Amino acid sequence: MTPHEIVKPWLNAGVSPVKSEEKFAPSNIALCKYWGKRDKLLNLPINPSLSVSLAHLGTHTCLTPIDHDEDEVWLNGLCLSEDSAFSKRVSLFLDLFRQSKPTHFKVETRNSIPTAAGLASSASGFAALALAVNDSFQLHLDAQQLSVLARLGSGSACRSLFDGFVEWQMGERADGLDSYATPLSETWSGLCIGLVKVDAREKATDSRSGMQRTLETAHLYQSWPIQAAMDIQAIKDAISAHDFEGLGAKAEHNAMSMHATMMASWPPLVYWQPESLMAMQTVWKLRAQGLPVYFTMDAGPNLKLLFERASADDVLAHFPDIEVIHPFGLI
Amino acid sequence: MTPHEIVKPWLNAGVSPVKSEEKFAPSNIALCKYWGKRDKLLNLPINPSLSVSLAHLGTHTCLTPIDHDEDEVWLNGLCLSEDSAFSKRVSLFLDLFRQSKPTHFKVETRNSIPTAAGLASSASGFAALALAVNDSFQLHLDAQQLSVLARLGSGSACRSLFDGFVEWQMGERADGLDSYATPLSETWSGLCIGLVKVDAREKATDSRSGMQRTLETAHLYQSWPIQAAMDIQAIKDAISAHDFEGLGAKAEHNAMSMHATMMASWPPLVYWQPESLMAMQTVWKLRAQGLPVYFTMDAGPNLKLLFERASADDVLAHFPDIEVIHPFGLI
Repeated sequence: MTPHEIVKPWLNAGVSPVKSEEKFAPSNIALCKYWGKRDKLLNLPINPSLSVSLAHLGTHTCLTPIDHDEDEVWLNGLCLSEDSAFSKRVSLFLDLFRQSKPTHFKVETRNSIPTAAGLASSASGFAALALAVNDSFQLHLDAQQLSVLARLGSGSACRSLFDGFVEWQMGERADGLDSYATPLSETWSGLCIGLVKVDAREKATDSRSGMQRTLETAHLYQSWPIQAAMDIQAIKDAISAHDFEGLGAKAEHNAMSMHATMMASWPPLVYWQPESLMAMQTVWKLRAQGLPVYFTMDAGPNLKLLFERASADDVLAHFPDIEVIHPFGLI
Repeated sequence: MTPHEIVKPWLNAGVSPVKSEEKFAPSNIALCKYWGKRDKLLNLPINPSLSVSLAHLGTHTCLTPIDHDEDEVWLNGLCLSEDSAFSKRVSLFLDLFRQSKPTHFKVETRNSIPTAAGLASSASGFAALALAVNDSFQLHLDAQQLSVLARLGSGSACRSLFDGFVEWQMGERADGLDSYATPLSETWSGLCIGLVKVDAREKATDSRSGMQRTLETAHLYQSWPIQAAMDIQAIKDAISAHDFEGLGAKAEHNAMSMHATMMASWPPLVYWQPESLMAMQTVWKLRAQGLPVYFTMDAGPNLKLLFERASADDVLAHFPDIEVIHPFGLI
């Protein structure tokens, strides 16, 4: 099945696209990771995942129809080359909605994510783009459909449609219409995320090809889906109980296990830098001293520390350069 | 079943132990790793493994009966405290052979392994001790029984009874009498091992407890035994074909997969230091430039480079401080 076939029933044949409102979607950080696709075209995952959205940090996007035979993609005020990977992915996504008389767009996208913080921008980017498309083409999709739509652009984008804790149920259907995200009702004021910037350079291996290499070459990956299923349940339980140490431990274990599957690939896929390991060692030393601080990591060298407001001063004493995010606002 | 029960039929009731000859056993480096025990008392493995012995680098051991009510363990010319872990393990091993009128020993053990090279000394140590015991107690054990005996002291010691490439078949029996090592007939003149010394300090977590933590907490470990079984076959094929790149790739993949199972443990078991990762990155860079160099790593931060004599100059240009070992001698 193709993304075109999924989108087709949602299209509004009589309607010409108009300038959209500026739409916003938050970045998200997975506490239980998405790693591995059962369908590469539809971005259908092999395991469920759970994230926390980063409040006001994310992507703002606006679509304006233009009289031009190609799209113009602007990122943070700069017009991208048509050959840039991001520009191509955006145009491919817009192709899904273009019908007999194709309209092209000026796509203005602006990230409020701290520059080079090692946060994925494709998740918030495609979530905001899905919202802008829904507005421009007047599709009137509901939250579930919007989540499916964002997923077609980038898997983890389906979680960036919502605030707070968000679960992406993997679904079972071949068309993926049951593979979308929903927000959890729980909130957690006082939960802090600290961004440790190890390396701002572009990754040598992007997540898409990294996942694929892991699936094809890491025998240990076979045990990952069951681990992820157990982890997500434990993380949901910890969230319900407001058990911070349970949440932190399971999130860190899940991230380390994901990185383990990468390292067991061939050739080895190691996103860590020596500085990543130094930051991990600091976290483990602090924890041994009784400070409840944990970390998670995505397909890159940067750490995202997890701690509570009560520990913030102690964490900052050892990580003075981190940027602290409060996903549920300040208490 | 206990080590005492295994050893009992081999004991020679009428014989008093005498001073042994000085016995030697080589260190060995596993190309397919031993990681995980199905029986902790008997050191029976969950997977087969394959190593290469390090020629003249290893342990020399001599046993002398003494008129004393405790053993005296000397290591590299220093008398160890009775409380030292090594001294206790040696005495426990000797207990297996002491009968009604117990004899104690001066155990003189000397490692010709470069100091702090990050090479396991328990493998060559217990192999040499098994040989010295066999001599002192006049047990007349054959190679297979000696391998089983050494295994009771330290799992990988069963491989240190032999030179060259050595395979440890895991066996199936509960008493472990079919779990011993045998040498392969193939040799590989020109094969080099380069010891990269990252950190000479004692490990925070020894291999025994590291294995145990992995088994108990790393879900990904469930996929390890099958991977190891596939790797050992591929490594044997590469040895038969003298396919160096096949050998190097499978050995590195196997080592990375073992470290992946450690990292997927809880709490995370990471033997790497930042300098380990830097050395790996250098290896990967050299390989990307066309130099056939690979590495393996045990439960510690040090790398063991694998390369052939023809690449030695190029490897040494980037790793000037390594100690180079020629397991099959110089060509």
